[in-house]
Amino acid sequence: MKKLTDLQVLINEAVDKLTFPESPAELYEPISYILALGGKRLRPALLLMACDLFGGDVESAVEPALAIEVFHNFTLMHDDIMDKAPLRRGQVTVHEKWNANVAILSGDAMMVESNKLMMKVRDAILRPVMDVFNETATGVCEGQQIDMSFEERNNVGINEYLNMIRLKTAVLLGGTLKIGAIIGGAALNDADLLYSFGVNLGIAFQLQDDILDVYGDPDKFGKQVGGDIISNKKTYLLIKALELAKGQQANELNNWLTARQFDAQNKVTAVTDIYNQLQIRQHAEKAMQTYAERAFNALDDINLPEERRQYLRQFADSLLVREY
Amino acid sequence: MKKLTDLQVLINEAVDKLTFPESPAELYEPISYILALGGKRLRPALLLMACDLFGGDVESAVEPALAIEVFHNFTLMHDDIMDKAPLRRGQVTVHEKWNANVAILSGDAMMVESNKLMMKVRDAILRPVMDVFNETATGVCEGQQIDMSFEERNNVGINEYLNMIRLKTAVLLGGTLKIGAIIGGAALNDADLLYSFGVNLGIAFQLQDDILDVYGDPDKFGKQVGGDIISNKKTYLLIKALELAKGQQANELNNWLTARQFDAQNKVTAVTDIYNQLQIRQHAEKAMQTYAERAFNALDDINLPEERRQYLRQFADSLLVREY
Repeated sequence: MKKLTDLQVLINEAVDKLTFPESPAELYEPISYILALGGKRLRPALLLMACDLFGGDVESAVEPALAIEVFHNFTLMHDDIMDKAPLRRGQVTVHEKWNANVAILSGDAMMVESNKLMMKVRDAILRPVMDVFNETATGVCEGQQIDMSFEERNNVGINEYLNMIRLKTAVLLGGTLKIGAIIGGAALNDADLLYSFGVNLGIAFQLQDDILDVYGDPDKFGKQVGGDIISNKKTYLLIKALELAKGQQANELNNWLTARQFDAQNKVTAVTDIYNQLQIRQHAEKAMQTYAERAFNALDDINLPEERRQYLRQFADSLLVREY
Repeated sequence: MKKLTDLQVLINEAVDKLTFPESPAELYEPISYILALGGKRLRPALLLMACDLFGGDVESAVEPALAIEVFHNFTLMHDDIMDKAPLRRGQVTVHEKWNANVAILSGDAMMVESNKLMMKVRDAILRPVMDVFNETATGVCEGQQIDMSFEERNNVGINEYLNMIRLKTAVLLGGTLKIGAIIGGAALNDADLLYSFGVNLGIAFQLQDDILDVYGDPDKFGKQVGGDIISNKKTYLLIKALELAKGQQANELNNWLTARQFDAQNKVTAVTDIYNQLQIRQHAEKAMQTYAERAFNALDDINLPEERRQYLRQFADSLLVREY
């Protein structure tokens, strides 16, 4: 098995070599720009890993892996317009550096480019690969729409939230792994199990992210601790707290959610205190554990030599116990 | 050969039957909404016609034909955001009825839906069909970007303009016909010739549109005559006039182009007068004739029974001599 870090190096080199036409510049420059912003490029590396797991030729999976990276960055380019985000990975977003129209159209062209890259698989698996890719793309669009609609709603339920993060982030992880498995020559059942592993792992990872935003070590967690609380972001923790809080607790929580002027640190401390009273962290960790177990159960059933399953387990462990 | 009007009826029925998931509503309702606005649906009918020309089963081409219609409407949904257009086919645009974010994301989902529909061809032709579709999509994005950049430029050349209309509108006609031909079982060479027929016909049609906007019979032409002149739209006529006008004519033309306050009818009359002095209509008709001839020449070389070529010729004639 190739090391994931080596696969990331391979992907980085491939992204650097990826070129687009020079003209029209305003269509293609933003594509090169957003791809050059970097990031961990974990998804494309995982596509290669999945191919390698089943004994496939990693080189033959590089262009489909790039397709996943281009597709993911297309969604970021459009999401940033919708979120009016000024920065992406510490750099100016495309719609700020150029304008919203450029970001819309470049994103559209990026999606076409990702389709072209994904088509670069052998004929025998073209249809199954493209079917997974299209279903994944639909899921990501649905997840983004559901997430946007949450901002205007105050009655989001836990199951709706879990469905949203499944669609918005987890199906892309699952789809990426499944495509890699198909390219690697996996049987359909094993590819489906790897998909299930990826989706459940993705949900667990997102729940961990929600927990870390409140309870993470500020020195290890990349973002501002409490950022979700300050912005009233509907995370697992907040939704669960709104479900469980009664009487005085519920009033206090709602006061913080509706306050227009507040001291950020006071809000973080007070809301965290309510979370603690309601044992929200434990609820969230239990949910996270449930999805992690589902991922590990799917993994156990994959028809692979035990040391390869162990490799996947270690990878999942490395993702799931990050920065406490 | 089936009649084009019958094929349009077939397409209309298929569009009516096309359903999308109920949820999330804000992702899928705008798709049903824009598709229900109607239009001539000429492109999907032409895909069926191309299939029929080569003796293919028209029923097997209905979903790919719908793919073209969904793709085209996706580009309209995003173009309308970029153009800040309030109306589309006399109805409120998606970004006005909902908002720009909904229109961005619904458009993205539409593009995925169009890919899924286009995949519904037999395995043997999946790759060539998707290759044509992806190349067509890239062309349309490039054409839209070039068109947007023209608005900020005063030195657009005739060849740049012809390239823009080729990409923005003509390659979709060519690609549609080529895909229909492939589904119908055409040899690659014949499919390529039909593509060339479609692209050149598309350019000729667009040039005719430019001419009609100034010289069309207001009773027959669907739009306001002179609309392009009033809005300084960079058409073949204006670009050619800017190229040919010298001295006093050039000054007068530039004065009208830079005037902030003017009487619309006076502007139309004055600019049309300059066009007449420079014989712009004759130049434009000659260019249109050149592309029409290229289309007919490609058609002559297609390996089909003469009466089928004649059918295509009559179709092209019906497009090209509309409303003088």
